Amino acid sequence: MTEVNIKELLASYDKKNLVIATACSHSSLQLFNGAKKEGFKTLGIAIGEVKKYYDAFPLGKPDEFFIVENYKDIMKCAEELQQKNVIVIPHGSFVEYLGPKNFTTLNLPTFGNRQVLQWESDREKERVWLEGAGITMPKEVKDARNIEKPVIVKYHGAKGGKGFFIAKTFAEFSKRVKHDKPYTIQEFVMGTRYYLHYFYSPIQDTGYKLKKGSLQLLSMDRRDETTIDEVQRLGSIAELEELGIHPTFVVTGNIPIVMRESLLPQVFKMGEAVVEKSLELFGGVIGPFCLETVVTEDLEFKVFEISARIVAGTNPYVSGSPYSELIQPDLSTGRRIAQELRYALKHDSLEEILT
Amino acid sequence: MTEVNIKELLASYDKKNLVIATACSHSSLQLFNGAKKEGFKTLGIAIGEVKKYYDAFPLGKPDEFFIVENYKDIMKCAEELQQKNVIVIPHGSFVEYLGPKNFTTLNLPTFGNRQVLQWESDREKERVWLEGAGITMPKEVKDARNIEKPVIVKYHGAKGGKGFFIAKTFAEFSKRVKHDKPYTIQEFVMGTRYYLHYFYSPIQDTGYKLKKGSLQLLSMDRRDETTIDEVQRLGSIAELEELGIHPTFVVTGNIPIVMRESLLPQVFKMGEAVVEKSLELFGGVIGPFCLETVVTEDLEFKVFEISARIVAGTNPYVSGSPYSELIQPDLSTGRRIAQELRYALKHDSLEEILT
Amino acid sequence: MTEVNIKELLASYDKKNLVIATACSHSSLQLFNGAKKEGFKTLGIAIGEVKKYYDAFPLGKPDEFFIVENYKDIMKCAEELQQKNVIVIPHGSFVEYLGPKNFTTLNLPTFGNRQVLQWESDREKERVWLEGAGITMPKEVKDARNIEKPVIVKYHGAKGGKGFFIAKTFAEFSKRVKHDKPYTIQEFVMGTRYYLHYFYSPIQDTGYKLKKGSLQLLSMDRRDETTIDEVQRLGSIAELEELGIHPTFVVTGNIPIVMRESLLPQVFKMGEAVVEKSLELFGGVIGPFCLETVVTEDLEFKVFEISARIVAGTNPYVSGSPYSELIQPDLSTGRRIAQELRYALKHDSLEEILT
Repeated sequence: MTEVNIKELLASYDKKNLVIATACSHSSLQLFNGAKKEGFKTLGIAIGEVKKYYDAFPLGKPDEFFIVENYKDIMKCAEELQQKNVIVIPHGSFVEYLGPKNFTTLNLPTFGNRQVLQWESDREKERVWLEGAGITMPKEVKDARNIEKPVIVKYHGAKGGKGFFIAKTFAEFSKRVKHDKPYTIQEFVMGTRYYLHYFYSPIQDTGYKLKKGSLQLLSMDRRDETTIDEVQRLGSIAELEELGIHPTFVVTGNIPIVMRESLLPQVFKMGEAVVEKSLELFGGVIGPFCLETVVTEDLEFKVFEISARIVAGTNPYVSGSPYSELIQPDLSTGRRIAQELRYALKHDSLEEILT
Repeated sequence: MTEVNIKELLASYDKKNLVIATACSHSSLQLFNGAKKEGFKTLGIAIGEVKKYYDAFPLGKPDEFFIVENYKDIMKCAEELQQKNVIVIPHGSFVEYLGPKNFTTLNLPTFGNRQVLQWESDREKERVWLEGAGITMPKEVKDARNIEKPVIVKYHGAKGGKGFFIAKTFAEFSKRVKHDKPYTIQEFVMGTRYYLHYFYSPIQDTGYKLKKGSLQLLSMDRRDETTIDEVQRLGSIAELEELGIHPTFVVTGNIPIVMRESLLPQVFKMGEAVVEKSLELFGGVIGPFCLETVVTEDLEFKVFEISARIVAGTNPYVSGSPYSELIQPDLSTGRRIAQELRYALKHDSLEEILT
Repeated sequence: MTEVNIKELLASYDKKNLVIATACSHSSLQLFNGAKKEGFKTLGIAIGEVKKYYDAFPLGKPDEFFIVENYKDIMKCAEELQQKNVIVIPHGSFVEYLGPKNFTTLNLPTFGNRQVLQWESDREKERVWLEGAGITMPKEVKDARNIEKPVIVKYHGAKGGKGFFIAKTFAEFSKRVKHDKPYTIQEFVMGTRYYLHYFYSPIQDTGYKLKKGSLQLLSMDRRDETTIDEVQRLGSIAELEELGIHPTFVVTGNIPIVMRESLLPQVFKMGEAVVEKSLELFGGVIGPFCLETVVTEDLEFKVFEISARIVAGTNPYVSGSPYSELIQPDLSTGRRIAQELRYALKHDSLEEILT
């Protein structure tokens, strides 16, 4: 898939002066903060101009800015960035801005396995991966006339859940749906949402060991979506629909949360199975990933999505979470990534965590 | 009630090598973490096998596992555990797994006053205790035909609120109720829920002093229950009931929260009264306890339940809460318990905090 | 406006022994804690008696209590407090208890610009300020017959939102409104609420620089209001209204939250514009202030109110927030205020931050 030859790329790098880089958005404050804590130099890739808001956060500000006119221009600058010994830490916005194809072929050492993208962005492959790992996902409804229980309708590629809607019957569905865009009809799973932030290391095997490497749980959050998550202050969705007001599912932030401890064995079993299936399918999901789950009244998990890199839901935990505190004080996901690079540097195994 | 002779039990203990033990669930990561911070050895009682998820949390992992086939087997192992100098820290799941009768007679030194169990688990005695302390509880509706305001119907002994439902009228009640199980009909109090995590020390009298000992407030949380706490994403309860979907009240996690400071005097007055009434009734609630409250629009507290030991709502605060930070940095409830044991050891007053 | 001559007042002060004082409520634990961390003596102004709850929080307890019969008596005690070298840190309750007129003329050095009060408490002047800064506020509906979209009706001077209600039509409005009190009808903005905690320093210009001084973002919260924020556990508002149950908007606490990073540039632009407009209008909003915002589905901010001093929403962050951790570990808004005083002392610029 990726044509990047990581061995070759790294050969020219000055390993004592690696620079951790990412795009100036999403979770970049946390990533730069974590990298600094582990003694790395940092570089922020920004559009058009230096982003002034970093000035307000000295411990999250990159040492250097790299300005491009638009993110796609990064492709042309790969060589220049190589000369700076840049390692890219991709986050959701980085991948989105660059575009999946560019991301896959970007000629820079990138933390994590870029192969994962095709398995994560294609709903059918995602299902093969997750269900193959024994995960329960919400069912898909192929034919809208078969809607018997509440469903959520998701337009493909819709940014931040825009246009998504919930329907309880075929009639409701028909009233709302726009047929000019491709969509998926998914069982709406009743329950409470937990976004689980894992970290998989293929090179360290202390801790919760897998067949290869080890797994951590660094934190959890609940995503906060406008307008759906405050809509109850006005009325029920059905009442609002009648007034022509349609709730939306656009992410605006994240709320910290913990889960009852008796569910943790299931949490680890899911994470373990997802990693091991990924090793089998495409060489493994490396570093941070997130299972987006709903816990039902029977205390069963349904996973409605996987994000195969750092999620913004880790941002409440810049200085540690109730889970990471049980690993090491002051450990964010951003810092954990930097630690993984440090470890790989020391053990000469960068090629196993970069692609 | 309890036939355990704590004086005799402790006589055989090597006080320099106490081991803090609990069942591997609920808040055990926090308890082990707190015990380690105070220099205690720890032991995790687990069913069937070593629980692997602890490997992911080295600072919350017990030094030793003690495997039993089922929790009730702990009864037979009391002597063996005595020889290991084990002090049990009970949490909600420990008591539930063992069963109240076993718990009361378990021949091991147990943190807190086991007498409290009978006052907490019997709804009528609980009411005598709390209302005797001047606490306002939701009213009970003896006859369903008298339902005039929203009520919540709770089945006795239902795990995690399963089957609980809300009714606004007798008709709604009749439609939902299952007569094959005993239930209580309770006024549904409108307001915001705050779960208040207190700690009562009968042996230290620095701080907020009571007639005997002193009281702390270590943290607060809001319990997160599936499906009720996310049900608004789909519709109002009445709308869902019509579709045959019944919200449930099964606890899945906890969200951190703080309360407006002007309510703290009431919070302490309630805690104080509850402790002093408990001293009068049964020798006192010792260590952590939780009042589960609703704050009404008139800023009055209604207490719908008491938990007389550590609650899982303290789990967001493994490394301190906005309240405990005003006592000592990095102070969890788990650590506070370990500190109490340390203090008692030093002042030769273990018998006052163990039963 | 204020007749206080700050220069004269400070002349008599022993600058090496300043005492930080506030009223014993609201955010006082945090303020005292922050002042202690920066090495200041502290004084708590309390009604009638020493507030016992501070005993439970030794790191938030003032070194000295100053007892008055009611808050208005502070006016008579100004001289006595001057002799103690008292600097007042006002919070919302302090201003409310004293009354705006008294507050403005209180003859004690007060942190922040007291001029701001008239711009903040008068809804029309507030609009001139904020809209003058380019901020979008919810529209006002002058004539209830023009209600076409959901509105919120706010009674003037209503404590904690008591009596506020939401109406979706003129009919709903008419049924609920009480004509004996003055009210404002405001567009109800659909979206998720974020309360942004800024700090403006006119004397330090490291960090995010403005024309004069610099701006920080210290934290965010979501306000928790009884009964509206848990009302969905019972039913939709319309359903409850039919039962004669009217949701209320009384603040009971605060929940920690973070915002997606891509919105931070907007957050700083808003803060910047609000400060610079305030410099133009009345000498500037000094120290902490809060924009109370709703983020719409188009990721636009609507600001429904400004609080021009420390808000209780900073209380979850006694030992730092996910944002302040990127400035300095363990930095609360209370501590930041104390730091500003330290800095001004060192640079002989107290007069620029006190009025």
